[in-house]
Amino acid sequence: MSWTLTAADLPDLARGATLLGTGGGGDPYIGRLLVASALGNGGGITMLDPDDPDDVADDALVIPTAMMGAPTIMLEKISHGREPILALRTLEDRLGEKAQATMPIECGGINSMMPLFTAAMAGLPCVDADGMGRAFPELQMETFYVYGVSSCPMSIAASDGSTIVIDTGMDAHQMEWISRGVTIRLGGASHIADYPMRGSEVKRTAIPRTISLGLRLGRCIRVAREQHRNPFEALRQELRETLYTYGVELFRGKVADVARRTEGGFVRGDVTLRGFDNDDVCEISFQNENLICRVNGTTRALVPDLISVLDVDTGEPITTEGLKFGQRVVVFAISTPASMRSPQALEIFGPQAFGLTEEFIPVEQRNPDTIPSPA
Amino acid sequence: MSWTLTAADLPDLARGATLLGTGGGGDPYIGRLLVASALGNGGGITMLDPDDPDDVADDALVIPTAMMGAPTIMLEKISHGREPILALRTLEDRLGEKAQATMPIECGGINSMMPLFTAAMAGLPCVDADGMGRAFPELQMETFYVYGVSSCPMSIAASDGSTIVIDTGMDAHQMEWISRGVTIRLGGASHIADYPMRGSEVKRTAIPRTISLGLRLGRCIRVAREQHRNPFEALRQELRETLYTYGVELFRGKVADVARRTEGGFVRGDVTLRGFDNDDVCEISFQNENLICRVNGTTRALVPDLISVLDVDTGEPITTEGLKFGQRVVVFAISTPASMRSPQALEIFGPQAFGLTEEFIPVEQRNPDTIPSPA
Repeated sequence: MSWTLTAADLPDLARGATLLGTGGGGDPYIGRLLVASALGNGGGITMLDPDDPDDVADDALVIPTAMMGAPTIMLEKISHGREPILALRTLEDRLGEKAQATMPIECGGINSMMPLFTAAMAGLPCVDADGMGRAFPELQMETFYVYGVSSCPMSIAASDGSTIVIDTGMDAHQMEWISRGVTIRLGGASHIADYPMRGSEVKRTAIPRTISLGLRLGRCIRVAREQHRNPFEALRQELRETLYTYGVELFRGKVADVARRTEGGFVRGDVTLRGFDNDDVCEISFQNENLICRVNGTTRALVPDLISVLDVDTGEPITTEGLKFGQRVVVFAISTPASMRSPQALEIFGPQAFGLTEEFIPVEQRNPDTIPSPA
Repeated sequence: MSWTLTAADLPDLARGATLLGTGGGGDPYIGRLLVASALGNGGGITMLDPDDPDDVADDALVIPTAMMGAPTIMLEKISHGREPILALRTLEDRLGEKAQATMPIECGGINSMMPLFTAAMAGLPCVDADGMGRAFPELQMETFYVYGVSSCPMSIAASDGSTIVIDTGMDAHQMEWISRGVTIRLGGASHIADYPMRGSEVKRTAIPRTISLGLRLGRCIRVAREQHRNPFEALRQELRETLYTYGVELFRGKVADVARRTEGGFVRGDVTLRGFDNDDVCEISFQNENLICRVNGTTRALVPDLISVLDVDTGEPITTEGLKFGQRVVVFAISTPASMRSPQALEIFGPQAFGLTEEFIPVEQRNPDTIPSPA
């Protein structure tokens, strides 16, 4: 059943989307301000349940919208508000058909917010689902692509009003390669519309209700904090009732070092943490998003499972840009839904897709002791 | 009046287009083979005179087609023949209208040939005119742009069948910037269609009859050689009857050094020549095309005037890629038509547009002694 997202939901959603952003995805804060401004003094955005045929008809045209670029640059190069609609309209013109809804391609980070902004500006509903179930750095890293939806044609809109339409047929890697080159030339961030699809394809390939999930997890952290409960334990319990199922605390300690560099249109780097009162060392490597977490040399969690860093006291998730020397944090991992762990899915966004040599083993199997026994 | 270009014209046209390519533009040889193959055992391409209303109606849609990239890479990354038509069709689809003719954007180098190939494959006529009157390295360096024709929308076709449509409005510099980024991602060379325009705009902004000019200059060199006449003197006389007017021999000597590097999608570098029996030194700097020629430290010719290097014995023009240590050559300059020397034209493709500090002074004024007195 459809539901209405209002401005009051945005702080919780931003918090949850930062958690699902796994360090990257771009801070949702800027996107949140854009959505709040588009909603003005009232009203809301109609959110469609992908599994409800009354919400999403099989033949409805759904056009996802998003921001593309290095998260560090997305924060610095703020949209003036016109580009998301321009990207949508440009793709509609190419297709010769109007979209009946927009949708996130990515529920983590700023791209949880950008389709809400597009929806509010265009007067469209937004499907409560996405194609990453978290944040990923590249456009082919979508369950849409894994399960056969064409990523093209795709459109890019720039802050100067320029538009680019790319059609690489079924080759989403080539689309990523070319659009990344364009985005670099546009200063490192751009607005896009891609993977135009029918309602039947949404149902078949999207991770369902991930905006709801972000809202729920963000609210869970806030409520636990307000009630002086342990936010990590609260998150773990909340996740048990979702497709994501397992939450695992991997490490507690202080940020000892953060190295990041912008290259090839991505932010890459490493974070080193040290235990509070011991010699334990935790290392996290990232390409926009956190990819792998090792504790004392042992791999504890690996992409596509989610690896997030949160403030040890408040449970507030922290993006890679927000990490600073001396911060006291918890590293928290979340298991991904089954459709993101299939052999075809792991080929597109498993460890090897990021140049890692470690085999993907689900986080709950790598950390069996931390899984609570069923109640 | 229209005329028919046949396969028999191609060797002379290739020679003349290499001369007009001023070292760059890409060797027309590959393009010549493509055109010859498209023409097969007979037939020809109808060449339209831009100033004849029976050839080019004011409201006719003309879509120029070309290759884009670093000349060195264009030679190595040969078209499989499908891309030029794909670029044309992609732009027609975007415009919702079929082209009535194609046209070169550049009469020097391989782009003298690519629109002929497109014309032969699509069964279209080709306008005998262009927007550079020579070769230039960047897409905004067009009399079309100087005199107000929009460069957009423009299309790019890749060898894998991918297409890209770029619309930067009237901003041809931004179109160049984005399309260059795309071309780099496509391996350094691509096929494009840009500056779609009406017949009335062709008449107002194009340099007329520049394919005829290339053919005429190429034939002039060959005939002089066959008749054991001095090809440089023959060229000088031939030019007197064209819009280009002045041919100037700047230097005779041997190639002492060639330094070239591919950067930012361009080939940049310098050539040093030494006199045969003296200490004279000639230095030429290029960005794809030759930009400036200094003899013993004195500037003798400067972009947009043409600077070409030819074999001292045969008069055969040599591209920058073809230059080798020890070659015995003549450096020959040609004055450009008046419409390429206006203040607005010099702003777009004069010395300052290439980062040079020297003021543009026409080659015939820099070298008054070499201009023959009127007969």
